[in-house]
Amino acid sequence: MSKNDIKDNLDIILDDSSNLSLNQIRRLLSKMTAPEIAHALESSPPKQRTLLFSLLKTEEEGDVLFELGEEIQQDLVSNISNEELIEAVKELELDEIVDILQNLPEERMDKILSNMSLVDRKRIEIGLTYPDNTAGGLLNTDVISVRPSNSIKEVITYLRDQGDLPENTDKIFVVNQENEYLGELSISKIITSKPIMLVREIMETEFLPIDVDLNDKEVATLFERNDLISSSVVDADGKLIGRITIDDVVDVIREDADQNLLGMAGVAEDTFAPPGRAARSRVFWLSLNLATAFIAASAINLFQDVIDKIVYLAVLMPIVASMGGVAATQTLTIVLRGLTLEQINTSNIRWLFKRELAVSILNGIVLSILVGFITYAWFQDTIIAILISCALIINLMSSVVAGILVPLILRKLKQDPAIGGSVIVTTVTDVVGFISFLGLATIYLI
Amino acid sequence: MSKNDIKDNLDIILDDSSNLSLNQIRRLLSKMTAPEIAHALESSPPKQRTLLFSLLKTEEEGDVLFELGEEIQQDLVSNISNEELIEAVKELELDEIVDILQNLPEERMDKILSNMSLVDRKRIEIGLTYPDNTAGGLLNTDVISVRPSNSIKEVITYLRDQGDLPENTDKIFVVNQENEYLGELSISKIITSKPIMLVREIMETEFLPIDVDLNDKEVATLFERNDLISSSVVDADGKLIGRITIDDVVDVIREDADQNLLGMAGVAEDTFAPPGRAARSRVFWLSLNLATAFIAASAINLFQDVIDKIVYLAVLMPIVASMGGVAATQTLTIVLRGLTLEQINTSNIRWLFKRELAVSILNGIVLSILVGFITYAWFQDTIIAILISCALIINLMSSVVAGILVPLILRKLKQDPAIGGSVIVTTVTDVVGFISFLGLATIYLI
Repeated sequence: MSKNDIKDNLDIILDDSSNLSLNQIRRLLSKMTAPEIAHALESSPPKQRTLLFSLLKTEEEGDVLFELGEEIQQDLVSNISNEELIEAVKELELDEIVDILQNLPEERMDKILSNMSLVDRKRIEIGLTYPDNTAGGLLNTDVISVRPSNSIKEVITYLRDQGDLPENTDKIFVVNQENEYLGELSISKIITSKPIMLVREIMETEFLPIDVDLNDKEVATLFERNDLISSSVVDADGKLIGRITIDDVVDVIREDADQNLLGMAGVAEDTFAPPGRAARSRVFWLSLNLATAFIAASAINLFQDVIDKIVYLAVLMPIVASMGGVAATQTLTIVLRGLTLEQINTSNIRWLFKRELAVSILNGIVLSILVGFITYAWFQDTIIAILISCALIINLMSSVVAGILVPLILRKLKQDPAIGGSVIVTTVTDVVGFISFLGLATIYLI
Repeated sequence: MSKNDIKDNLDIILDDSSNLSLNQIRRLLSKMTAPEIAHALESSPPKQRTLLFSLLKTEEEGDVLFELGEEIQQDLVSNISNEELIEAVKELELDEIVDILQNLPEERMDKILSNMSLVDRKRIEIGLTYPDNTAGGLLNTDVISVRPSNSIKEVITYLRDQGDLPENTDKIFVVNQENEYLGELSISKIITSKPIMLVREIMETEFLPIDVDLNDKEVATLFERNDLISSSVVDADGKLIGRITIDDVVDVIREDADQNLLGMAGVAEDTFAPPGRAARSRVFWLSLNLATAFIAASAINLFQDVIDKIVYLAVLMPIVASMGGVAATQTLTIVLRGLTLEQINTSNIRWLFKRELAVSILNGIVLSILVGFITYAWFQDTIIAILISCALIINLMSSVVAGILVPLILRKLKQDPAIGGSVIVTTVTDVVGFISFLGLATIYLI
């Protein structure tokens, strides 16, 4: 089956006008891989999604659940019985089971764990102790480890005895009797080395294992910086407890990017969330903006007299505010990106501030001349044209201060600067924009 | 050396107050990997960056250049001589050399190519024919291929003869005499299979090779959906021409996310770009916003009479506009995300539209009651309180139409919806906000 067929299958399933019988859909689903089915579920409105999921075989459900985003995963899990869930996750790897179970209510979790074998239960309980956003949360326990004194021949025999190696096994790990990590050995090194060589002679000890407590974003950075496919994970005593593979790291990178994008708009929901949930996820942000909009309105309110005298000030004032808002969002975005990529630190922040100020002055001159001319052409009023130009320059400079300081302060306060940032900076530029323009008008026109 | 040491090195280098001698910096740099040095360069203002780069050994420069973002890479390349550049890229893989050379001016490229061996030149020229954003642009030609009639024993001997396998070799490929792709064989399968088995008996033929013309974002999707580490790439005739590895795909994913984030704010520059370049990169967006701000101002201008009579309409009108802008950005973000993840199609867009409308009505009711009460408490004017509530609901509903239609229309017009989208949708909500509020006031108050 070619890739185009797969794409066609997806389109047919997602198109409700195609009127397939349940059996036809079942047949199409059986031709798709778990990630493809997960994508179909994530591209379906809730009702259709529940229907599609119910058509899966129980043994497929586990793999599909693991591939889904957290919100949809939880929805579907909450709709199936404990027995079905146990059956569904039976064949999954430990980190996958933990990923699915960790968000269950405690009571339900206990019931499910009590139905598992003691060995599985113990292993899952250990997995559940690691926070979701750490190396521990990405951990696979399917590691293959050998001793430094083994010969390559012994290693190859051992690997043959295993039958299939775990997925994404590009290397195995070398440990001592206490299971402490000593080094690693790539599969290609094993295959290209002479069978009589000893593990200790060819193992690599340069790259250090990842600490189980390391933040998952830092894990992603390590993988990217070192072009890793897998890495060992050790506990505080240096004992090998598992490995992390690139496929789970790619998910971290995607989710991180997704959250940055959504966070800046104050939404936190999957694309096809039901209306009630979507409304709840967004109302906080809208309410926050309402509060800040009234703050901006209060700034205008101070200048009722001057607006009353020269009504087209009211026509022009949103221009100053809006330009400041866009400039501030640009500065904020650059700072947020720099913070995310860990490029910004105490040694270069001053340079960045000066650069942003220079940018705002450069663009401020160009734009204020433009605004001044358009305003003059429109209202034939030289003084107002000059005032709006000055107010614009003032507001662009304030946008730099807000765009740089707000994310840094939010970070100091342990808040995510991507989430609160844009509403706060645009409030600053709204207020400064209204006050500078109307204030200058009050001074020079009445 | 532990990971913490590496981090310390970076901090020391980046901190100009540490006053290191050039030799000390050189020593620190020599302890760092190419991606770490690239990160240090990307975290440095231009002058410091040029200095750091000049301290690298020529043989390190190639690896570091490849790890850098396009803009910084080009800057640094433009500062070094042709001889140094040829020396620097000598040890790189073909796809890496192509990545660095492809943005050079034609004249310079010709000079550099003419200094290379005929074989290298031919290979690089082939690499340069593939567009940057396709599978061809990610291509490595360091593939290992075997014939279906080979035994595993022969394959292992062949691999041993190679010495080190290319990086990220998790599989080798099976081709016929015409070099047409037939299947693949994972290294772990080779190691765990009996030496007498034939390649044809154990090769996998299920996953299809990637077409050289495939868009790089679709390559990334294929890698993610199938948890791939590497994939074969074929030309239009089905001949194996190379492979793509996960490390390059991770870069595509990161860059894509980065561009989405930056695109929405209309910035396109590296974090420490010099002021002139940063100003140029942003001025287009600011000018576009200036045009749309004047459109919104023209809407207000229609209602000078009513503002003249009731001046606090001018105080309140930005609230309606601003709330609509935030709601529209939320809808836009959800649609953009859905489009990026290929979740939105003709079959579910209608559901999405209805959902967004329901969200806007739900939140519209809550927020308009809130706005009404606050307005009444502030100005003691029942009619204005009712009017602003109604205008807010109208504007929130318009935000849904704009937030959904604008990105879809931009995409139809082959524009990137992430880049033009937000300015257009907020213009719509500004105009509708001002007209609905001031229009209702004109009807009911004068």
